[in-house]
Amino acid sequence: MNPIDWKVTASDGNARAGIITTRRSVIETPVFMPVGTQGAVKGIRFEWLEDELDARIILGNTYHLFLRPGVDTILKMGGLHKFTSWNRSLLTDSGGFQVFSLTDLRKLTEDGVEFRSHLDGSKQFLSPEVSMEIQAALGSEIVMVFDECPPGDGGFEATKKSLEMTARWAMRSKDRFNELQACGSDTGFVQSPSLSLPIATKEQAEACAISGKQALFGIIQGAGHLDLRRESLDRTVEIGFDGYAIGGLSVGEEKSVMYEVLDFLAPQMPNDTPRYLMGVGTPEDLIEAVNCGVDMFDCVIPTRNGRTGSAFTSHGKLNIRNAKFATDDKPLDPECGCSVCRRYSLGYLRHLYQAGEMTASIMISHHNVAFFLNTMRQAREAIRSATFQSFRRDFLYKLKQNDAS
Amino acid sequence: MNPIDWKVTASDGNARAGIITTRRSVIETPVFMPVGTQGAVKGIRFEWLEDELDARIILGNTYHLFLRPGVDTILKMGGLHKFTSWNRSLLTDSGGFQVFSLTDLRKLTEDGVEFRSHLDGSKQFLSPEVSMEIQAALGSEIVMVFDECPPGDGGFEATKKSLEMTARWAMRSKDRFNELQACGSDTGFVQSPSLSLPIATKEQAEACAISGKQALFGIIQGAGHLDLRRESLDRTVEIGFDGYAIGGLSVGEEKSVMYEVLDFLAPQMPNDTPRYLMGVGTPEDLIEAVNCGVDMFDCVIPTRNGRTGSAFTSHGKLNIRNAKFATDDKPLDPECGCSVCRRYSLGYLRHLYQAGEMTASIMISHHNVAFFLNTMRQAREAIRSATFQSFRRDFLYKLKQNDAS
Repeated sequence: MNPIDWKVTASDGNARAGIITTRRSVIETPVFMPVGTQGAVKGIRFEWLEDELDARIILGNTYHLFLRPGVDTILKMGGLHKFTSWNRSLLTDSGGFQVFSLTDLRKLTEDGVEFRSHLDGSKQFLSPEVSMEIQAALGSEIVMVFDECPPGDGGFEATKKSLEMTARWAMRSKDRFNELQACGSDTGFVQSPSLSLPIATKEQAEACAISGKQALFGIIQGAGHLDLRRESLDRTVEIGFDGYAIGGLSVGEEKSVMYEVLDFLAPQMPNDTPRYLMGVGTPEDLIEAVNCGVDMFDCVIPTRNGRTGSAFTSHGKLNIRNAKFATDDKPLDPECGCSVCRRYSLGYLRHLYQAGEMTASIMISHHNVAFFLNTMRQAREAIRSATFQSFRRDFLYKLKQNDAS
Repeated sequence: MNPIDWKVTASDGNARAGIITTRRSVIETPVFMPVGTQGAVKGIRFEWLEDELDARIILGNTYHLFLRPGVDTILKMGGLHKFTSWNRSLLTDSGGFQVFSLTDLRKLTEDGVEFRSHLDGSKQFLSPEVSMEIQAALGSEIVMVFDECPPGDGGFEATKKSLEMTARWAMRSKDRFNELQACGSDTGFVQSPSLSLPIATKEQAEACAISGKQALFGIIQGAGHLDLRRESLDRTVEIGFDGYAIGGLSVGEEKSVMYEVLDFLAPQMPNDTPRYLMGVGTPEDLIEAVNCGVDMFDCVIPTRNGRTGSAFTSHGKLNIRNAKFATDDKPLDPECGCSVCRRYSLGYLRHLYQAGEMTASIMISHHNVAFFLNTMRQAREAIRSATFQSFRRDFLYKLKQNDAS
């Protein structure tokens, strides 16, 4: 049995609708995965994510969880699902992206990356092997290979060199991942004494046992160089993974470069596995990437913007601080059916934001996540009914209305 | 018809269980009212307060709402219920307590208090009349008279002088309140052109119309001087109100002074109206006050402590930052059935708190409010079954366990 099951159920042009089945949940795609960096989606209790928003998968960050609370604690608590009580699917990143963001604090070798924790300055080390061990301890359903993330504006030679290291690291990631799966460490139960991480007791491992293995996704790099993207794709597919991700986009390059890469790359990615665009993006980006055939997304912007009072709506972004909303009794988005839009007015939410009330962040984040999940729901329906192009056109047209007003 | 209906349904010693029926909800007493200072209970969405926690009445602060968003905005939005979407009962304080806390920023005369806003330094004025007008605009079910709050450690003469002003202000409050009720301004519809506040349009007033009037509660002052408390009680009852509150406790005096005043005063307060102890207090305080015959409470500590990681439990307070909780898979309070205790572990909540996740504040505040509401529920049941004394003894004994450990 494969760790995940993947079926394309409908397609419309390059856009496709499908179903990913993990050991913990059934995920309809295209899917947006809310980000739970530190084991929680900022400001939104799991009860809302499960019951109303119906998120089937969320993301956890290996870098953050490795540093705090640490693998030892998570192992003692029976893995990330048991620790957090989130029982649906989890995808964990490899920690690579965060580590490479610490430009001044890291030292890169073939072996891995030495870096200083942003929390306490302590010296830490991540490598393909360590990242796989951490992600096994976390017990996520989808594990990401440890890759190097070159800058978006890197030249050809630098990008090519980085890509080659990424390919070697992908191989090392897969090897260690397979060892870990073979010894049953996929939910935090590490039997092999050769591993560098703390070992869960048998009782702890049994307490969190769940049938089925973890899946491993490869990552395609190559910045804005289409030929390097093609090369990275080939080399990654040659190694062979349960799914493929596009890394290194939305990292500072021009928007047109991202769209060009997506246009070129996504349709060439394997049909028989899910395609995941990492860390992207705005509602517009999501719809354009779906149009190229991408299935999975994650991004912090719904919750990050929610905390700064910026709401995504079907008519574009709005800033809740705007004085014109002070006595506006309409909802954030009249077309949204989320629990925030059904009940609370712009005027009230603006007041809460201006008054520094936490519930402003809570409720705008909630609406934003609802908007992203609903956008994906609409995209799925449009693909199934073969009306994706008209949906896309209308959606993008409406998004520009607030900008124009 | 009275603005509120009050029935004592059971008593046990001085403790009593009862039912307050307002135009918007049925409130079983003894009751704890969560504080919604600025039109929201900090960190807890109304959906939780209604569905799980079943709070029947919350408190709003006239001082804060007067300054932000301001009466004009609230009137335009149809009163505080419509503005916030909270449709159960509201009690609003008079603003007096907050204004008198601004020691350096205020000027007190017989007429009222001139003060500077803590938000922008602007000059503002509150008086019995203005407070009544604001509270009419807010449209709360229970309005508090505008009183002077003397320091808890004031001498006899100063306290007596203050108490006399409070009595005159209580009379003025009642007069203006009655005028406002007579002209139908109880939900923000102000018809009389002589009033100093913005006037709602007829449409606005009709949009928020609800049958039934507001109730007005008097406030008994007198600090720790029992004879002055007695005098204040007599003078306040002579004026005549729908309920009576004990003000000026838990404002810096010794705990023993508070208990002495409660012991002396509460049983002498009228039987045929509710008794409300303002701004108090800890779970222990609540049970001791119920024992003296108090029916209503409000306090910010469940949510304030929730935000600083301090949880109230049946075994006393615990500090979630304590390292001993890092891998503890027990809930905050094993005896609590709230949605936080049913699902989340001490270890996870500690991690969220240490990681600066908003959900830590959200969930600890939620549990704390649940604990306060459940404590009152247990007290009501104990009174009804005439077992209040044994409940009180056990409850207070258990509360001390964490302190001892």
